[in-house]
Amino acid sequence: MKKRLIVDIDGVIADIYGQFRKFELEDFGTNQDYSEITGKLEEEAFVNGEIYMATKGFFRNASVIPGSVEALKKLNKTHDLFIVSAATKFPNSMAEKQEWLLENFPFITWQQIVFCGTKEIVKGDIMIDDHFKNLDKFYGQTILFSQPHNLNRVENGHNRVANWDEISQLLL
Amino acid sequence: MKKRLIVDIDGVIADIYGQFRKFELEDFGTNQDYSEITGKLEEEAFVNGEIYMATKGFFRNASVIPGSVEALKKLNKTHDLFIVSAATKFPNSMAEKQEWLLENFPFITWQQIVFCGTKEIVKGDIMIDDHFKNLDKFYGQTILFSQPHNLNRVENGHNRVANWDEISQLLL
Repeated sequence: MKKRLIVDIDGVIADIYGQFRKFELEDFGTNQDYSEITGKLEEEAFVNGEIYMATKGFFRNASVIPGSVEALKKLNKTHDLFIVSAATKFPNSMAEKQEWLLENFPFITWQQIVFCGTKEIVKGDIMIDDHFKNLDKFYGQTILFSQPHNLNRVENGHNRVANWDEISQLLL
Repeated sequence: MKKRLIVDIDGVIADIYGQFRKFELEDFGTNQDYSEITGKLEEEAFVNGEIYMATKGFFRNASVIPGSVEALKKLNKTHDLFIVSAATKFPNSMAEKQEWLLENFPFITWQQIVFCGTKEIVKGDIMIDDHFKNLDKFYGQTILFSQPHNLNRVENGHNRVANWDEISQLLL
């Protein structure tokens, strides 16, 4: 039986930092260096982050994180793949995220998509996520996707990866 | 530790048959008797059912199933309650369903809401649902909420209930 693989959207396959920076550039005319925001939670790094996330188009127009399409296309065959995104805090983001997902990852079906408030509710064998709050409560294999907000933290038993090539090496 | 209770929306707390019949009345000027549709799957009973479900307002304007608000208010204290709805087939339904939910069940938070394609992905102790496809794959306690489409079928090990009073008697 295939192992069930649970993959996050924001910060793992969708470049949310890119969107935060784009929106901040429009707001303030400036861009923070990644060095300035390393180790800060997203809501600390981007003062209007919550407003941006509630803005139409924020999720719909995010860039795809390099390598994620090719890797997930393969993992979709070898694993029981689910895309699980914490999204109910911003209810209008769900249709947007799904549209984005089906456009950029056309091999993923609606049956494989989950939107939730907390990821404690899902069961699976492997979880790829950039947030400790999700990985810490998961009882299977955990893969921590590096993002500025988690870079300064010790891994707490999770397997840290810097990119999708490293995930492919681990799982394929 | 509280038991995790997973409750369906359509046909368990939202009166979806009422909506199908209302839409059909508008379409054809007639209403099928419940006796005519008993034992038929929803898609067999209502020829335009899929179109209705994809129509704006279908979920937003559903009536609440009697007794569900009072029972869930109590169960929300005694159990680790999650509302889990198969909804990704109709992406625009998600924001609608959440709005409906927060209006009619204001004690439920966004953290307790899950939208998915298949309920195989969620883990919990008790599931209340009107569909065998969801209950049959759940490894915990299963409660079958009677609806016309499931009335003629044997329970297959699930505990059948006719209304929310019976659920309260079972769980409270």
